Amino acid sequence: MENQTKQRYFSFVDLMGLEQRYRAAFVNSLSGFKSLALIGTANCSKQTNLAIFNSLFHIGANPPYIGFISRPDSVDRHTLSNIMETGYYTINHINEEIYKQAHQTSARYAREISEFDATHLTPDYKLGFKAPFVKESHIQMGVQFKERINITTNNTVLVIGQINQVYFPNDCLCTDGFLDIEKAKTITCSGLDSYHKTERLARLTYAKADRDVSIAKLGYIE
Amino acid sequence: MENQTKQRYFSFVDLMGLEQRYRAAFVNSLSGFKSLALIGTANCSKQTNLAIFNSLFHIGANPPYIGFISRPDSVDRHTLSNIMETGYYTINHINEEIYKQAHQTSARYAREISEFDATHLTPDYKLGFKAPFVKESHIQMGVQFKERINITTNNTVLVIGQINQVYFPNDCLCTDGFLDIEKAKTITCSGLDSYHKTERLARLTYAKADRDVSIAKLGYIE
Repeated sequence: MENQTKQRYFSFVDLMGLEQRYRAAFVNSLSGFKSLALIGTANCSKQTNLAIFNSLFHIGANPPYIGFISRPDSVDRHTLSNIMETGYYTINHINEEIYKQAHQTSARYAREISEFDATHLTPDYKLGFKAPFVKESHIQMGVQFKERINITTNNTVLVIGQINQVYFPNDCLCTDGFLDIEKAKTITCSGLDSYHKTERLARLTYAKADRDVSIAKLGYIE
Repeated sequence: MENQTKQRYFSFVDLMGLEQRYRAAFVNSLSGFKSLALIGTANCSKQTNLAIFNSLFHIGANPPYIGFISRPDSVDRHTLSNIMETGYYTINHINEEIYKQAHQTSARYAREISEFDATHLTPDYKLGFKAPFVKESHIQMGVQFKERINITTNNTVLVIGQINQVYFPNDCLCTDGFLDIEKAKTITCSGLDSYHKTERLARLTYAKADRDVSIAKLGYIE
């Protein structure tokens, strides 16, 4: 790539001058490939809700905590209110077979309509967990709400939860604990609406200052 | 995939009982594919630093804000202290040509050694911006620190900044503002050390409750 000749530039002032939807599409592209998940909840009357999120991220492994960003003015709002009501939710990876249905959950359905029904995804209750899992998902987590952090600069909310249950395909677990989510068919997205499958370049060895990195083996558990 | 027969289960107690590095590898895999970036900084003495992050995420488009998670006990610490010192940093997408060098920046170099030198990546100063960009990166952002949020549950820090400059390949911009980061060769990662390129399944149209989603066109700006 000839960086010098082909590169284009936007300043902050340029960005602020863009038409609103154009700016949303552009700025949403800048944060790179994103984690995709369907978050399943139910309210106290057992009315279920399912919504797609592209802002999942690792908080810590000890204890196992996972976070996501909720935008209260969007369709996420039922997810957040259900989590506040019950304290539990499920996080379900999205694969190639269900990504169109997953995207469709972002439509503004009325509260009394479950996105499970509207998008023909199957609620799955496991071990008495209060929130529904997505049966068609290959990696599913049952999560307990831990902390809500309001990001006042733009009225978004960071929701942190503890992973209480994990279900995953047995043949995707490696001997060092790495879970091969590509083998489990998990996909990623970019921008607001672009879905991508992946192809592994390599796993790399732990980086040390006195040696170059090299390719690590993928040893699956038998 | 035959979910019923092949699925395996870990409870919270199982997770807490795992050996520490095994648990870190496993739990880091659960948050899905991640945004990858090199963050470039300099301290007030113009000593440069470069570090890889896999926790970039979109905060908002109006104004254009982007966030990342810093773990103060890891090699990120020089990045965070430089940002606090100068108020500026760069976020640079990682492509297939530089991912091994990018990974190598996670080694524990002494403070007086610049990861730019150690990994043979080229610092690039643009328009008088205080922090160095990575010349080999195809999508580069100049960012101004806005807010630091301490996540007390596990001593991590959410850093939010405003995008003041964006450089990107001209042929990757679509007519609706979507920036095709796959065309720009941006890659993604999973777990702590697995790097992946992507293959687009589709862009989907805006979801509405009264219709099914369909494939959207990718119209590039000429």
